[in-house]
Amino acid sequence: METTCVALVGMGTVGTGVARLLLEQGDRLSRPAGCRLRLKHIVDVDVARSRPLAIPPGVLTNDLDRVLNDSEVKAVVQLIGGIEPERTIMLKLLESGKDIVTANKALLAEHGPELFDFARRHGRSIAFDAAVAGGIPIITNLAQCLSANQILSLRGILNGTSNFIISQMEERGAEYGDAVAEAQRRGFAEANPAMDVNGSDAAQKLSILAHLAFGAQISWRDIPRVGIDELQVADLRYARELGYRIKLLAVAQLVEGALEVHVSPTLVRSGLPLSEVREANNAISVVGDAVGRVFFHGPGAGQMPTASAVVADLIDTVVGRTRITFRTLELWSSRAPRVPACDHTRVMGRYYLRFMVDDHPGVLADIAGILGQQKISIASVIQHEPEEESASPTRVVPLVIMTHSANEGAAASALKEIDKLQSVREKSVRMRVLD
Amino acid sequence: METTCVALVGMGTVGTGVARLLLEQGDRLSRPAGCRLRLKHIVDVDVARSRPLAIPPGVLTNDLDRVLNDSEVKAVVQLIGGIEPERTIMLKLLESGKDIVTANKALLAEHGPELFDFARRHGRSIAFDAAVAGGIPIITNLAQCLSANQILSLRGILNGTSNFIISQMEERGAEYGDAVAEAQRRGFAEANPAMDVNGSDAAQKLSILAHLAFGAQISWRDIPRVGIDELQVADLRYARELGYRIKLLAVAQLVEGALEVHVSPTLVRSGLPLSEVREANNAISVVGDAVGRVFFHGPGAGQMPTASAVVADLIDTVVGRTRITFRTLELWSSRAPRVPACDHTRVMGRYYLRFMVDDHPGVLADIAGILGQQKISIASVIQHEPEEESASPTRVVPLVIMTHSANEGAAASALKEIDKLQSVREKSVRMRVLD
Repeated sequence: METTCVALVGMGTVGTGVARLLLEQGDRLSRPAGCRLRLKHIVDVDVARSRPLAIPPGVLTNDLDRVLNDSEVKAVVQLIGGIEPERTIMLKLLESGKDIVTANKALLAEHGPELFDFARRHGRSIAFDAAVAGGIPIITNLAQCLSANQILSLRGILNGTSNFIISQMEERGAEYGDAVAEAQRRGFAEANPAMDVNGSDAAQKLSILAHLAFGAQISWRDIPRVGIDELQVADLRYARELGYRIKLLAVAQLVEGALEVHVSPTLVRSGLPLSEVREANNAISVVGDAVGRVFFHGPGAGQMPTASAVVADLIDTVVGRTRITFRTLELWSSRAPRVPACDHTRVMGRYYLRFMVDDHPGVLADIAGILGQQKISIASVIQHEPEEESASPTRVVPLVIMTHSANEGAAASALKEIDKLQSVREKSVRMRVLD
Repeated sequence: METTCVALVGMGTVGTGVARLLLEQGDRLSRPAGCRLRLKHIVDVDVARSRPLAIPPGVLTNDLDRVLNDSEVKAVVQLIGGIEPERTIMLKLLESGKDIVTANKALLAEHGPELFDFARRHGRSIAFDAAVAGGIPIITNLAQCLSANQILSLRGILNGTSNFIISQMEERGAEYGDAVAEAQRRGFAEANPAMDVNGSDAAQKLSILAHLAFGAQISWRDIPRVGIDELQVADLRYARELGYRIKLLAVAQLVEGALEVHVSPTLVRSGLPLSEVREANNAISVVGDAVGRVFFHGPGAGQMPTASAVVADLIDTVVGRTRITFRTLELWSSRAPRVPACDHTRVMGRYYLRFMVDDHPGVLADIAGILGQQKISIASVIQHEPEEESASPTRVVPLVIMTHSANEGAAASALKEIDKLQSVREKSVRMRVLD
């Protein structure tokens, strides 16, 4: 059996998992790879640190040139996060004739067109199934398994950190801050979790999926997004009372032939598979015009799940499948987008609204009046008696309204107007609803 | 853009769906295929029948030789069901240099080793993602996306007909016979549904999945299987009362390094994704040692879902991915199985037991005594008061017992002995439990 030399750049958590599979499961991997995979170089800035696995002598180095100048190395797993110098490293690797496997979604979301174009010009490929949804092979499923379909909609829970935090808030009644702290303690959130909780991470992943599924070329920065950082336990409770769970959904869907994309906390009807996704898991529900609805669920991050995706990509690269897919799909090429972007203010949907209002007569009438002017009709209302008597003469109580299907622009206008009412005491909450 | 000629043999329901995609969605398919796919021949015994789509003149024929002798045709979609003459047709097609795409799981389960070996000898490939779980791309996911993993367990709802029948019984309280009739009326069951409801269809699919996931070479006939044809509404009700749903599960899993396979109605704890699979859908839960648990859900059959899988396979074949996968995986080759078969009598698991017993003192003690002798301990018991007074002096009442984990051999022995008791009036029911 032949041997193929590969290299690994970046030996953090996932890199260590990848090295473990390559060094310890060589026999197993040789079967689907049709050859022995030899991990010839591991490049990491820190060569002194002790590692939790035995690395053969001479493999670990802090010198990228050893990879660049080694013509035996055909494929490189690039697992450093961030934008620079990662972009430059990737360009150098491609230029020196290496095919790339990466999990760096931020880099692809930021510089995808440049990197893919550069790879094409150098006759190389970039595989990136590990960049989105960790262990769920959603990239291969979209690029290959569902290739006979026009994708109609794609809805995903793509940020495991946010899902873990929501699960903590929902199941234990934890406040947002405490749930974040617990996520950090358990290793599901970074010291600065901003990109995870403000929807940016999900938007980066969605921009990649939307390109694969719809040929869209949208910068993740242009994807309308709301995170979970202002989510309140009260809304999780009201949602539950109405028969829903709140999830941070990333959505790309065709609306009258145009593409709508957004990331936002969304009420998902209990019983729908997406509503049942717990802890740090990810899930994606895809509707294709031929296949119908297909649903994928699995670990969205973590050392070995992500390493599983990376090594599958590495095998695809070594055996030649990636090269074929990369060539035919022409990802991030100058091809025109296959679908136009849609005007999101015209998108129809149901809304969950929560207002904090003075508990006195006429308030509901005022709010309902404004909604009516915008042609938004009310499906249900929750207003409970306050749990305890307040000392103040005017009590503030929550008023929860679930609408029938309404135009997003109208919903936004109505809320703007309602928030100007004197009897409305806080910025109102508006979330989409998925039935 | 180049043109690649393909042919279709068998234009039944799925074949019509495949023809529709190839004839009507040419532009869409040319992107992932990197070429135009030209459907040059459609072979069907019935060339006179009117078809629900426009077939270009000269394409429809009842003469297979037109395909065999056309060296322009590189890949053939073979969609006739059954074993012969389908086996002979497939051998002829391979011999004449055509790569094959098929959905015929029965043929693969029966003659896989011969067909794959023959294809290898002629330098051809066989793609078969549509043969298992319809629109769910489980074959590609196992053969390619999860290739870095040792699969530890695979549990699937692989027969949509059975799942539809169980759903009808569970949700509408329909008796088995009425649910079968409804499935037939809705087109989910054939006139003779035996292979579906007795577990044979699921066993055929499981034999294919077990080969991919574990390298096992098991004839589907050797897979222990129980169907749903003796399932009673009462058991669905008791299961629900205990917090479970009953599903026809196909299971292949490693038990202490050996492979256990079976198909049987199983109590699945409510809330587990497999328990939520409704109607004629399929689902598969796969655990890999690196990735953890990944779950796939989608339509298990139907014209367009199956056509989606067939056309994806056709594209994989035309672009060259299938050839690579086929070569590296050496499916059904003479390679030794990677895992030994396990002695299923030693497999541990929980059981649901239902006995129909005389309603008089001492019966529970007798049954519990026999279970105790076999070291089977009881987790819970349901015995309700009979709903109505019976006229007979001895009433027969159901006694439901959920056991703790027990050895399958012991459970079988205990039931054999219990069924000999005079106070036990019917053959007892025993089902596995999945927590």
